[in-house]
Amino acid sequence: MEQQPKQQNALQKRLYEIIFGYNTPAGKRFDLLLIIAIISSVSAVILNSVSQLDQRYHQWFITTELIFTVFFTIEYLARLYCSPQPKEYAKSFYGVVDLLAILPTYLALLYPAAQVMLLFRLLRILRILRVLKLVRYVSEANVLLRSLLLARRKILVFLFCMVLLTTIYGALMYAIEGPANGFTSIPKSIYWAIVTITTVGYGDISPVTPLGQALAALVMVTGFAIITVPTGIVGAELVNELRREHSLRRCFHCERAGHDSDADYCKYCGASLHQQT
Amino acid sequence: MEQQPKQQNALQKRLYEIIFGYNTPAGKRFDLLLIIAIISSVSAVILNSVSQLDQRYHQWFITTELIFTVFFTIEYLARLYCSPQPKEYAKSFYGVVDLLAILPTYLALLYPAAQVMLLFRLLRILRILRVLKLVRYVSEANVLLRSLLLARRKILVFLFCMVLLTTIYGALMYAIEGPANGFTSIPKSIYWAIVTITTVGYGDISPVTPLGQALAALVMVTGFAIITVPTGIVGAELVNELRREHSLRRCFHCERAGHDSDADYCKYCGASLHQQT
Amino acid sequence: MEQQPKQQNALQKRLYEIIFGYNTPAGKRFDLLLIIAIISSVSAVILNSVSQLDQRYHQWFITTELIFTVFFTIEYLARLYCSPQPKEYAKSFYGVVDLLAILPTYLALLYPAAQVMLLFRLLRILRILRVLKLVRYVSEANVLLRSLLLARRKILVFLFCMVLLTTIYGALMYAIEGPANGFTSIPKSIYWAIVTITTVGYGDISPVTPLGQALAALVMVTGFAIITVPTGIVGAELVNELRREHSLRRCFHCERAGHDSDADYCKYCGASLHQQT
Amino acid sequence: MEQQPKQQNALQKRLYEIIFGYNTPAGKRFDLLLIIAIISSVSAVILNSVSQLDQRYHQWFITTELIFTVFFTIEYLARLYCSPQPKEYAKSFYGVVDLLAILPTYLALLYPAAQVMLLFRLLRILRILRVLKLVRYVSEANVLLRSLLLARRKILVFLFCMVLLTTIYGALMYAIEGPANGFTSIPKSIYWAIVTITTVGYGDISPVTPLGQALAALVMVTGFAIITVPTGIVGAELVNELRREHSLRRCFHCERAGHDSDADYCKYCGASLHQQT
Repeated sequence: MEQQPKQQNALQKRLYEIIFGYNTPAGKRFDLLLIIAIISSVSAVILNSVSQLDQRYHQWFITTELIFTVFFTIEYLARLYCSPQPKEYAKSFYGVVDLLAILPTYLALLYPAAQVMLLFRLLRILRILRVLKLVRYVSEANVLLRSLLLARRKILVFLFCMVLLTTIYGALMYAIEGPANGFTSIPKSIYWAIVTITTVGYGDISPVTPLGQALAALVMVTGFAIITVPTGIVGAELVNELRREHSLRRCFHCERAGHDSDADYCKYCGASLHQQT
Repeated sequence: MEQQPKQQNALQKRLYEIIFGYNTPAGKRFDLLLIIAIISSVSAVILNSVSQLDQRYHQWFITTELIFTVFFTIEYLARLYCSPQPKEYAKSFYGVVDLLAILPTYLALLYPAAQVMLLFRLLRILRILRVLKLVRYVSEANVLLRSLLLARRKILVFLFCMVLLTTIYGALMYAIEGPANGFTSIPKSIYWAIVTITTVGYGDISPVTPLGQALAALVMVTGFAIITVPTGIVGAELVNELRREHSLRRCFHCERAGHDSDADYCKYCGASLHQQT
Repeated sequence: MEQQPKQQNALQKRLYEIIFGYNTPAGKRFDLLLIIAIISSVSAVILNSVSQLDQRYHQWFITTELIFTVFFTIEYLARLYCSPQPKEYAKSFYGVVDLLAILPTYLALLYPAAQVMLLFRLLRILRILRVLKLVRYVSEANVLLRSLLLARRKILVFLFCMVLLTTIYGALMYAIEGPANGFTSIPKSIYWAIVTITTVGYGDISPVTPLGQALAALVMVTGFAIITVPTGIVGAELVNELRREHSLRRCFHCERAGHDSDADYCKYCGASLHQQT
Repeated sequence: MEQQPKQQNALQKRLYEIIFGYNTPAGKRFDLLLIIAIISSVSAVILNSVSQLDQRYHQWFITTELIFTVFFTIEYLARLYCSPQPKEYAKSFYGVVDLLAILPTYLALLYPAAQVMLLFRLLRILRILRVLKLVRYVSEANVLLRSLLLARRKILVFLFCMVLLTTIYGALMYAIEGPANGFTSIPKSIYWAIVTITTVGYGDISPVTPLGQALAALVMVTGFAIITVPTGIVGAELVNELRREHSLRRCFHCERAGHDSDADYCKYCGASLHQQT
């Protein structure tokens, strides 16, 4: 997103290195501080929702929240100040998330009625992605994402079959069991079908008539059979992806690929895989 | 199904292109219109079953239903009119589904008692398959279907074992727990065994005695072990199918694809895969 | 089990062909009759347990049971009569199952108190295995069985870890939640841990305290992670088994194996896979 | 851990062979005795928690516990006595577990209030690992462990996504359903999200409003899709591990195994795998 930095003064450059960078010791310390602040802030929001805790530590929660909001506000302004392209940053995904992390508190101060909006503070958890993006787990996440992307059409076909099946099963159960046994409408019956086919099985709605139980058994066995399909799809793509990942190493001598990650010598010609002679 | 078109006049030809075809802009627009009509119509049927909505918008639902029925009736008659082989079309799978999409409304108008039949309108959702059949997802669906077909015998063996296991477990639980704890008959106990072995676990019937709970634990671990088998079967077949699909090598002689990456000769006709002679 | 037939007269030979054989038309017809008798008989036992049906058709169930018992008794005696080694047959797995299929009814006639024993009649369902053993599904079942056998040690290691985990989790929950919240003893808590770790989740016992719910969440995520292990084990063995199954075909010319089941020509040398020239 | 034995007298040597060793007949017998003692002792602790059994056999349980404690104490002292490096042993994992297996009983005798501590006796079950470590299942466990280790980063990425998803879903459900329908706080809603996404589905908390049920359906389908990812990860790694394990080819030069079936040269030292020079 961000092209070449333009007209940065010394302070901006230093701040940019600390806040956006991750190679300098100061940048690493800032990243660590940010992760701690995000996790503490999100934990405070979560614990605040427990009414016993809120009653006992109400004032403490408000103070903590104000401190975090001030900290994140200063950080946001600093990012805007030191970024070579402030507008680009403000419009980027992370820029919007950074703003969403502080806005709810200010809005709740202005309009006390909008308490629900305070939940948006939980979006701060997304900020953690920025820090993690910089580290080594990104290549692992890429293998997973690529497998899912390669399998996306198959997953769509699979999801379409699920929608078809749950609609038909839901309507059938609505006709068989009826409102008297909890299946009060087709949408609710479809909800039951999803609860059953994914093997969650709350038991808040369950068939009572013998015919309904027989159909439910069919739904379950179908779900059981269906669970194999996406597992197989993603698994098969992953096997391929992993194989490709392994094959990135190439012998300098015979140019054949497919070496294990712990191999030191080419398995085809015996040349070293490390020296480029 | 449909062989060469015979004796079509200009209007029939134009209609055929729009309704059955999918290459012309008009054909594509018609397909889109059809998908919207099907989804709206099915959504209306589903929402109609919610009694609060039905009470408030009863007249609106009836009007909508009539409009959709008239639209689908005209479409059905147009298909009959422009099809080069109307009888073949009427007897085909999609012809029957098209008819089932409009018949229930007319029957409900004639025999008001047959309200349950209105649920058959949900079969309209199957009509969506026709439109999707024409697009690119068909090859993805084919890979899934071929994997399932190749694994069909193994899946049958697996299902037979499931039937055997659930019958024996169900009878055992009936003997151990008995009617007092909810296991009122063997069929109901088999239903419990299926609910448990598929890991759905509603909890509407659950063992109470220590012996019953011990057996239930065994059933669950069995189910847990069993879930691996179909996953492995379909997954293994999918790995093979994907490998074959990935190999885009095609024989120059017989033009068939699906050769392994290490093949030198066509496995169907024996011609070399390397020379283009 | 059965070695060479000795001293059979003509009737015995004919009977042996029909009852034990499966190549002659009469043998096939007898197998079909046997399957129908087994399924009908087992269905009658299952339906007999439904008290409403039993009250209405009590006499009918008793008559049916007697007819089936007489039929299976005659069949058992005929098998003993025509088998070349009656003792071997009587002691074999199928011989014992055949006897168990008729014994409970006679015992229930002699000792009317032993009604529970009538459930042993359900073991008749195992007799169906004999008939199925003769047909083509056996090779499919073999691939599944071989995969499970190859993975048996890994599955044992996995089951041992499960026992360890559920014992520790169960004891922890017993200490945290205690008898007041349904965790009345360690065995019951272990039952809860199995219900949870296999993702069945009846909900008959569920944690109430925050600490208990936190531990339960850990148990679930562990179960979620653990489910991958046996799936991966069996799946990986199946991939290998399928590959081996494919590699049974061998080229007569270059003697290399690994041909797909639909291949007509060797993919390495181009020779036909069908002719042995 | 344990380096060369120093200054052992004859009794110590003999004891060391029996207690720590597993090659002599006496060592094998001791291992078997130990396994029986561990399983009996753990079973007694588990059964002791059933209040009916405790009331009837209270004295018997106390006696048994004392006998086992004395036995394990003597064993612990013998291990300390005969070990060539007693301090190393006492500080090792198994040394600590051995101590934890006897300590709780003595502490409970001294401080009768600390009854809960008696549950620590269940840690004795970990002692069984020592005996099993010596036998052949260790290589199987290694394959499983190595697959999990190779996949550890991918599993961490996956767990992080789970934490993210359950937090967001939990907060959403808390906002939609609210305390009136059982979602009394965000931590409890996150607990619900974990129960649902892992397909356990107790049903102690379940959505009531239509919007909540729609979101729950989304959570379930997400969970259903997510279950495929770790299965695929571990499965794919296991396929690779098994392939490596199956290849029993060993380098004549560096004696390391694990070469692919198509390798011509050792990947560790570069020597030819074919000639024995």
